[in-house]
Amino acid sequence: MNKIEHIGIAVKSLAESNILFEKLLGVASYKEEEVASEGVKTSFFQSGPNKIELLEATNPDSPIAKFLEKKGEGIHHIAFDVTDIISEIERLKNEGFTVLNETPKKGADNKLVAFLHPKGTNGVLVELCQEIR
Amino acid sequence: MNKIEHIGIAVKSLAESNILFEKLLGVASYKEEEVASEGVKTSFFQSGPNKIELLEATNPDSPIAKFLEKKGEGIHHIAFDVTDIISEIERLKNEGFTVLNETPKKGADNKLVAFLHPKGTNGVLVELCQEIR
Repeated sequence: MNKIEHIGIAVKSLAESNILFEKLLGVASYKEEEVASEGVKTSFFQSGPNKIELLEATNPDSPIAKFLEKKGEGIHHIAFDVTDIISEIERLKNEGFTVLNETPKKGADNKLVAFLHPKGTNGVLVELCQEIR
Repeated sequence: MNKIEHIGIAVKSLAESNILFEKLLGVASYKEEEVASEGVKTSFFQSGPNKIELLEATNPDSPIAKFLEKKGEGIHHIAFDVTDIISEIERLKNEGFTVLNETPKKGADNKLVAFLHPKGTNGVLVELCQEIR
């Protein structure tokens, strides 16, 4: 795990939260991107070597819609940058973690991603992500 | 805001979670530290330029004890590294954020810290921290 790649934050309105996080971080969002397969619209902010990813649900069955319903707005996941996601998935399986995507899937921001089940990580939804070259 | 300095994660048992996060991150905790004024025992892991801070309550009135009771284990706060915490507090107050510590206080890991009220930040507890030189 090379660094925290980003923190994902579930929000009700990307438009409103874009304004809020621009004030908070002192920089504007550098990209918005929809990931149709996940039912989310995302917005990214740079903070030095790290990013903040705002997540708005685009349909009521989206995992983000369910998260908002259950827990309200707030931190949804933490993503770590990895060099080789396949070997990292293998290493974590061997350590006893439950990997939700044994085959990494295409995420936002040009990444291959896989999630770990939060029951095995103290309630923290952990994402692994590897830049697609 | 220079980078994500650390992510704070509330856990029931520092001893058990130290083992878990060592497996997850592939590195051992580099420091444990008690902050008596906050009623917490902390453990730090390095992940590139960022840190993970595990937080265990040392008494039932600790904010971490209350968080665990209400929400269970999970991500508690996100801390941003700032160069000048006094001017950053001023900037954020002027932007309309509610700063919970107008005078920064001494936190773990040799830092001056101040928190923003999560009601003004989409439910995210945001910490500012400046290294004490």
